[in-house]
Amino acid sequence: MKTHRSGCPVNLTVEILGDKWTLMVIRDIALGNRRHFRELLTKSEEGIAANMLSDRLNLLAEHGLITREDDPSHKQKVIYSLTEAGIELVPVLAQIIIWGRHHLPVSAHHDALAKVMEEGGIKLQRKLMADLRVKHLASEA
Amino acid sequence: MKTHRSGCPVNLTVEILGDKWTLMVIRDIALGNRRHFRELLTKSEEGIAANMLSDRLNLLAEHGLITREDDPSHKQKVIYSLTEAGIELVPVLAQIIIWGRHHLPVSAHHDALAKVMEEGGIKLQRKLMADLRVKHLASEA
Repeated sequence: MKTHRSGCPVNLTVEILGDKWTLMVIRDIALGNRRHFRELLTKSEEGIAANMLSDRLNLLAEHGLITREDDPSHKQKVIYSLTEAGIELVPVLAQIIIWGRHHLPVSAHHDALAKVMEEGGIKLQRKLMADLRVKHLASEA
Repeated sequence: MKTHRSGCPVNLTVEILGDKWTLMVIRDIALGNRRHFRELLTKSEEGIAANMLSDRLNLLAEHGLITREDDPSHKQKVIYSLTEAGIELVPVLAQIIIWGRHHLPVSAHHDALAKVMEEGGIKLQRKLMADLRVKHLASEA
């Protein structure tokens, strides 16, 4: 039985996501459409290490933000899917993207993407989540 | 010269805020109206340690999210203020609060507060930021 530092939603969220890598993995699955270990590892712009990626995927599965199952189209591969809780992190990611764009030294390439997110507003976030539900939750039905 | 893992806004944000304590300090200053070291330390619901608090306040000041100055009404005390960049973390905190409320074991007391934040929507977030600008940025004018 894990004890929590407090029952505050900010604290409980930070207990899971508050480190240097977990949100990177969520970002790559949710916004980068990477579903397999190999592509999460090799396409990582920040150069995540294999043991760290493995550790973060375990943590996300343990907390019910992702599921893993054998990929029906690649017998040897495991495919990672976001759960509804994972998909609902899109608005959190969106606000972080908008904040980062305004206050941190975001690269030109990323700024163009962030601008789309900011200008798309809540409507784009809802569309992204609807698309993720189709792609990630279908196999649970 | 600090090097960044990438120019992605999620990464750059996580490089600053991605740990177990920094967002707690922001939360307590922004939503708990705590401006002095002593109250940030003693009222911390999660029981932050003095050296950790000191370290996080230094990091937040270094990254331009807070400023510190002598409190004009308490000669011995330093008062911490959010900068505009710090204030604009309110929408990030709000989305985390809403997400946490829906998916994590938030306590009844915190759920009541989180419900207000969720139902208040963007209008409440704007009001909170406007109030923070009055309280925190006035001395910079």
